[in-house]
Amino acid sequence: MSFLQAARGISEERAPIWLMRQAGRYLPEYLAVKAKSSFLEMTRTPEIAAEITLQPLRRFPLDAAIIFSDIMTPLEALGIDITFNPGPSIAKPLRSAASIEALAMRDEVAPFVGDALRIVRAELAPDVALIGFGGTPLTLAAYLVEGGGSKEYTHFRQFLRREPAALHLLLDKLTELSIVYLRMQVAAGADAIQLFDSWAGLHDAVVYREFGLPYYKRIMDALADTGAVRMFFALGAAHLMDVVAEVPADVVSVDWRTDLRAARAQLPGRTLQGNLDPAVLYADRATLASEAQRILRSGLGGAHIFNLGHGIWPDTPIDAVAHLIETVHAFKRL
Amino acid sequence: MSFLQAARGISEERAPIWLMRQAGRYLPEYLAVKAKSSFLEMTRTPEIAAEITLQPLRRFPLDAAIIFSDIMTPLEALGIDITFNPGPSIAKPLRSAASIEALAMRDEVAPFVGDALRIVRAELAPDVALIGFGGTPLTLAAYLVEGGGSKEYTHFRQFLRREPAALHLLLDKLTELSIVYLRMQVAAGADAIQLFDSWAGLHDAVVYREFGLPYYKRIMDALADTGAVRMFFALGAAHLMDVVAEVPADVVSVDWRTDLRAARAQLPGRTLQGNLDPAVLYADRATLASEAQRILRSGLGGAHIFNLGHGIWPDTPIDAVAHLIETVHAFKRL
Repeated sequence: MSFLQAARGISEERAPIWLMRQAGRYLPEYLAVKAKSSFLEMTRTPEIAAEITLQPLRRFPLDAAIIFSDIMTPLEALGIDITFNPGPSIAKPLRSAASIEALAMRDEVAPFVGDALRIVRAELAPDVALIGFGGTPLTLAAYLVEGGGSKEYTHFRQFLRREPAALHLLLDKLTELSIVYLRMQVAAGADAIQLFDSWAGLHDAVVYREFGLPYYKRIMDALADTGAVRMFFALGAAHLMDVVAEVPADVVSVDWRTDLRAARAQLPGRTLQGNLDPAVLYADRATLASEAQRILRSGLGGAHIFNLGHGIWPDTPIDAVAHLIETVHAFKRL
Repeated sequence: MSFLQAARGISEERAPIWLMRQAGRYLPEYLAVKAKSSFLEMTRTPEIAAEITLQPLRRFPLDAAIIFSDIMTPLEALGIDITFNPGPSIAKPLRSAASIEALAMRDEVAPFVGDALRIVRAELAPDVALIGFGGTPLTLAAYLVEGGGSKEYTHFRQFLRREPAALHLLLDKLTELSIVYLRMQVAAGADAIQLFDSWAGLHDAVVYREFGLPYYKRIMDALADTGAVRMFFALGAAHLMDVVAEVPADVVSVDWRTDLRAARAQLPGRTLQGNLDPAVLYADRATLASEAQRILRSGLGGAHIFNLGHGIWPDTPIDAVAHLIETVHAFKRL
């Protein structure tokens, strides 16, 4: 598999490509499914999640599929009540030590995600990798304390300063949950696991080193014996690269704002993944091709898996996606 | 004036301090004014804007006052219809070249801001500096094209890729407007001007160098003969420091995520301003003092104006602000 070769650090003639949120709202066949089911039904019904996961693979020669799910999905196993409208909303935000102490993990963590992975793996071409994923404890905690998405996460950042011990307890519980959840995904057929740290960018390096890194190490270490490729994506983390470099990940995803050459210098020996700005898919074809080639050139000097620098946007032109994949596959790295 | 000495690069025994959004919602006297007037009335009535500007100075021994206003304030002079509810909302987002070509500047740009500055200057102690401000063209354009605040600014970033020439025309018009507006503020008594690039963090360095830097240079160059201190604050710009270093500013404000030592190395010879995380004002007193002292130590090696790394939050404890100012003033730099 081209994806797994690159993920393991082997530079090949062409860069493999997949796209964050490749199974999503820019595809009419996704919108057709979405018209009939709620987001929770879509993530919790293995046949539907598998179908959505496979949709972009039927259309495009992508090198990997990523399971259709959400980083909030495993949290129900801690007894947390989440709704989507459309972003996640927590019925009872966790803003006290007592509410965190009361969280207890159930026996099974989102078994339907395992069922979906098994369906996808059986239908997927053998040369296409299957990616499972989860959110980092620090990002999940941001949603749980804030109560949902936010621009500044002031409640969460206040809680971190007022009740650091309680936050550490929450991060510990989320780490244990993540380990069970991600190991289950590998057992169900995931070739690789990506940890998404969507809100890394809120923090300075001192905070990130105390409240992020130790938990990410524990999760990655707990996946080491599975043989799955371990991938890490921290959004808005250009100022945190010293800390990111200490996360034991095989592949580091880089958002659209960090130059891959700079990332290569800061992350020697890692496979880099990324990082075309999703906005470039709206440019004219010549600009799209030249920007993709600029990213491909900046990814030379080590293994590179091409991706966007953030999830693809809902109204992205489909023909631009096809053109991007052609451009990436036509580029000779060696 | 301690503030102006530091702004001009002179390291003194103690760091001057002011706080972004120091005139704001954490003060009961501000909330009392706000209960009686709309946000537009508050910014457009010189007596009210001056009163709010002076409120924190009556309570705290701050080294500078910043005029109470909003970065959107001058845009009305281009014929743009803006409301606040509470964030800015643009009645007709600019999403075509024609709508941008139609923008024309009126004779006077927000003269009420000049009137407010004159009132404040007359009442302010002579050793307290007065700061005027504006938004950068790229940040103003983000609001104008998107239609208001946003997490990802997808409309704006698409427009940048689809219609780069139209965006350059908009940036040119906003630059001309900013020059008139900011020179007027200096003539009305501002000792310093801060340019806020609140949405710098959306962009990679290639985009920032093309759509940001040339316009920031023009504005700063147009202020050079006024004698006012020129200050620049780009939020989320750790990855853009090479470009920021080319902005001809006397003072560079740094957000809470960038270590001041790293910024000092990237911005030799500049006065640095910042950068305590506003969340730290919710920590216990000992932690607040030790974090402030950590920032003060990291600011050594050149001139430093203490500030937060982002605007103060609405429900910040007032006694924490007093404790912070005492801590900063007690710290001996020499």
